[in-house]
Amino acid sequence: MSGIRGCMIMRPWGYGIWQELQRILDAEIRRTGHENVYFPLFIPLSYIEKEAAHVEGFAREMAVVTHHRLEQKDGRLLPASPLREPLVVRPTSETVIGAAMAKWINSWRDLPLLLNQWANVVRWEMRPRIFLRTTEFLWQEGHTAHVDRQDAQQETRKMLAVYRNFLEDTLAIPVLSGAKPASERFPGAVDTLCVEAMMQDGKALQAGTSHYLGNNFAQAAGIRFTARDGEKHFVHTTSWGVTSRLIGALIMVHGDDNGLRVPPRVAPRHVVIVTASNADAALNAYADELCQRLCAIRFDAHRQIVGNVDRRDLRLGEKNWSWVKKGVPLIVNIGKRELENRTVSFSRRDRAPQEKINLASDLFVSQVQDMLDEIQQNYFNRASDFLAQHTQRGLSTYADFEQAYSNDVFPRPFLHVKWCGGEQCQAQAEKLAVTIRCIPFEQSDTAGRCIICAQAAKLDVVFAQSY
Amino acid sequence: MSGIRGCMIMRPWGYGIWQELQRILDAEIRRTGHENVYFPLFIPLSYIEKEAAHVEGFAREMAVVTHHRLEQKDGRLLPASPLREPLVVRPTSETVIGAAMAKWINSWRDLPLLLNQWANVVRWEMRPRIFLRTTEFLWQEGHTAHVDRQDAQQETRKMLAVYRNFLEDTLAIPVLSGAKPASERFPGAVDTLCVEAMMQDGKALQAGTSHYLGNNFAQAAGIRFTARDGEKHFVHTTSWGVTSRLIGALIMVHGDDNGLRVPPRVAPRHVVIVTASNADAALNAYADELCQRLCAIRFDAHRQIVGNVDRRDLRLGEKNWSWVKKGVPLIVNIGKRELENRTVSFSRRDRAPQEKINLASDLFVSQVQDMLDEIQQNYFNRASDFLAQHTQRGLSTYADFEQAYSNDVFPRPFLHVKWCGGEQCQAQAEKLAVTIRCIPFEQSDTAGRCIICAQAAKLDVVFAQSY
Repeated sequence: MSGIRGCMIMRPWGYGIWQELQRILDAEIRRTGHENVYFPLFIPLSYIEKEAAHVEGFAREMAVVTHHRLEQKDGRLLPASPLREPLVVRPTSETVIGAAMAKWINSWRDLPLLLNQWANVVRWEMRPRIFLRTTEFLWQEGHTAHVDRQDAQQETRKMLAVYRNFLEDTLAIPVLSGAKPASERFPGAVDTLCVEAMMQDGKALQAGTSHYLGNNFAQAAGIRFTARDGEKHFVHTTSWGVTSRLIGALIMVHGDDNGLRVPPRVAPRHVVIVTASNADAALNAYADELCQRLCAIRFDAHRQIVGNVDRRDLRLGEKNWSWVKKGVPLIVNIGKRELENRTVSFSRRDRAPQEKINLASDLFVSQVQDMLDEIQQNYFNRASDFLAQHTQRGLSTYADFEQAYSNDVFPRPFLHVKWCGGEQCQAQAEKLAVTIRCIPFEQSDTAGRCIICAQAAKLDVVFAQSY
Repeated sequence: MSGIRGCMIMRPWGYGIWQELQRILDAEIRRTGHENVYFPLFIPLSYIEKEAAHVEGFAREMAVVTHHRLEQKDGRLLPASPLREPLVVRPTSETVIGAAMAKWINSWRDLPLLLNQWANVVRWEMRPRIFLRTTEFLWQEGHTAHVDRQDAQQETRKMLAVYRNFLEDTLAIPVLSGAKPASERFPGAVDTLCVEAMMQDGKALQAGTSHYLGNNFAQAAGIRFTARDGEKHFVHTTSWGVTSRLIGALIMVHGDDNGLRVPPRVAPRHVVIVTASNADAALNAYADELCQRLCAIRFDAHRQIVGNVDRRDLRLGEKNWSWVKKGVPLIVNIGKRELENRTVSFSRRDRAPQEKINLASDLFVSQVQDMLDEIQQNYFNRASDFLAQHTQRGLSTYADFEQAYSNDVFPRPFLHVKWCGGEQCQAQAEKLAVTIRCIPFEQSDTAGRCIICAQAAKLDVVFAQSY
């Protein structure tokens, strides 16, 4: 965290992960037909006021710009020149993008309008937590407009699937997907879909959301189109986003006692070659040559393997640990013996750091791509096993529920159980700090009773404690 | 512009150019050893106050956040919950990054520290102008710390050279580079270097700056290191940046009566295939096949050729003009005749749009890369010729000076002339809205007289009107 309340500093390694993540997700968002735009940071109060539920949801957490100048007075710097209309620092951009859509959309030919932006947003946090809940965070926010409900809902499902694939394939984080109960919807949404991941304490982290906004924002901003039948209709809009909290998710899903473990697909570096501190010219040349050979190998469709030589004037062990802590997938040590034998001694971050493997350098070069793939897969498998182990199905009584979240149960479980649909049962669960994380798309057709109140159940849901 | 005072909306084509530009410049910034980071949007007043010249320079244009909540009152939304210490929305990040450097830097081993961030910044604009002077803009800001003046000054020169190459090679914009006179330095800088470009009205646009900050910010933030001799010293810092105004520069340097002309290296699309509106399946298949062949060709080290088929239900001419206006380098038309003969009819954006070239499609595919290179080069050559034509050297009297900027001279010229170094001569020039844009690095060693006051000259300088 920075010295500025609730705001974080992203240092090179963390920002490097964000940049890889952004590159990969951006390509996918564009591939699915969306175009990137950039809208203003500041939103006039008059825009915000237009959608009642939206105001209600965000009013308590908005940073407000009221002045546009500072003045020296009695040796202190004070705000001067008040604005006629205060501006809010965007907490999200439905209202400002809606105002533009109202100008840009005329006929059904202009639809669907598929926009996305990468931006910073601000939501004033009373209990900030690094990467997970910060006053300012980075995100992408998609905003789309459609001719009808069906097309818009299809979009929300499509983008949720993009998030799911991205989390699983790229970040190696298995997720549940489904809809939020009404009480957990985005302010102004008709329907909120989500992907939820399990952290190593068993708590759920909302990793991405996709909202069907109905006509709510279209009516607030006057986004209308002339349909094929010549009539004017309001568009149906969606919005969807993931944020820099994904870095927090990655740390909390894959980290171990030795620090971070970064899945190779988003690792800023795949391999670091650490030389002994008494390295001579021959050893340095060997390190450079190895690094060049590795970096000439294609990692995936988008980039080569990224590697570097660490020749800092520090002890070998100290250098190794600095990379273990950062979570670099492969750490290669070379000293006199490795040089003489043309071998490498390396450790894989998916195994114990003490476990050193010796290999002829040619073999290492020829196997490096497979090892990186294996590491990626191992992280995913481990997280999937963990999720499966700490997920309980078939519990049916409130006694079971209380037992599942009693103080001695760690990690906390995800419960796939039945719910009556009643808010009083949600309130009851919240006494144990447990909420309904999602209503899975696939619903069983068996009858059953609500785990909280034992009345006839309406829905299969997943309960969990959450961040 | 958006409905929000001084703030712009970047629509897909403009943002697409920014994204290409960012990708290429980012690679260069990283290649030269800098690491990306992200620092908070908000800066406490106490940080800003520490550097006197910095406050002085920015106080009049800072957006100030004073509240962190909104409240409904009498049907209106009003700021509530005042902050104990108001926050400024960053106009630039020397102070906040300096505070972090003070924590991160201990010894000479930690230097140089080479950071960069891509971010939005806010400077309240009284006379906003789209892309050139907006209240919020996007930029990259490099911030580095060094052991001594020499190393820091070398950094400012190196990054200015990166900007120069980037502008010339990638944006096809020729620039002058040099130092700013004292009156035009960045608030808090010891020395400001710049690259300046000539727009088509002959006015200068500052396209990038690189500042040597001496110990000013190091003293303000307490950034000290233990040198090899065991003594504590203040670091020497630099900062350097280019902004989204480069898109404005690109429009104003390369645009013609028909609209924008985008240099291929930053074009979001290189080629658009426009089909006749009565296209049948065979014609569509021909278009798709051609598009696929083009998009399989490597454009440069970083990307393939980007192309698409425009099959909108509009007249051919209307579709063509929409792409001419956007500045797509190559526009290909295919209709029945082209299909039958396996040819294409295309126009190059560096020539008149009416000039249609017919070519066998195989030939077009084999020549497309060369044509794109030619277009890139032609834009640069044209801009260079224009700069040369409207640059005057050797003028020596104030009468010459007045004549050069008299009302009937258009475009306005750049004057390479001599200056005494006196501020009163700068004030005199400003009466004609003319300023010293830069003091070129290469100084002639001939004596001479100031063009304004005819006293003995100290420096060769470039005068121009500017944006």
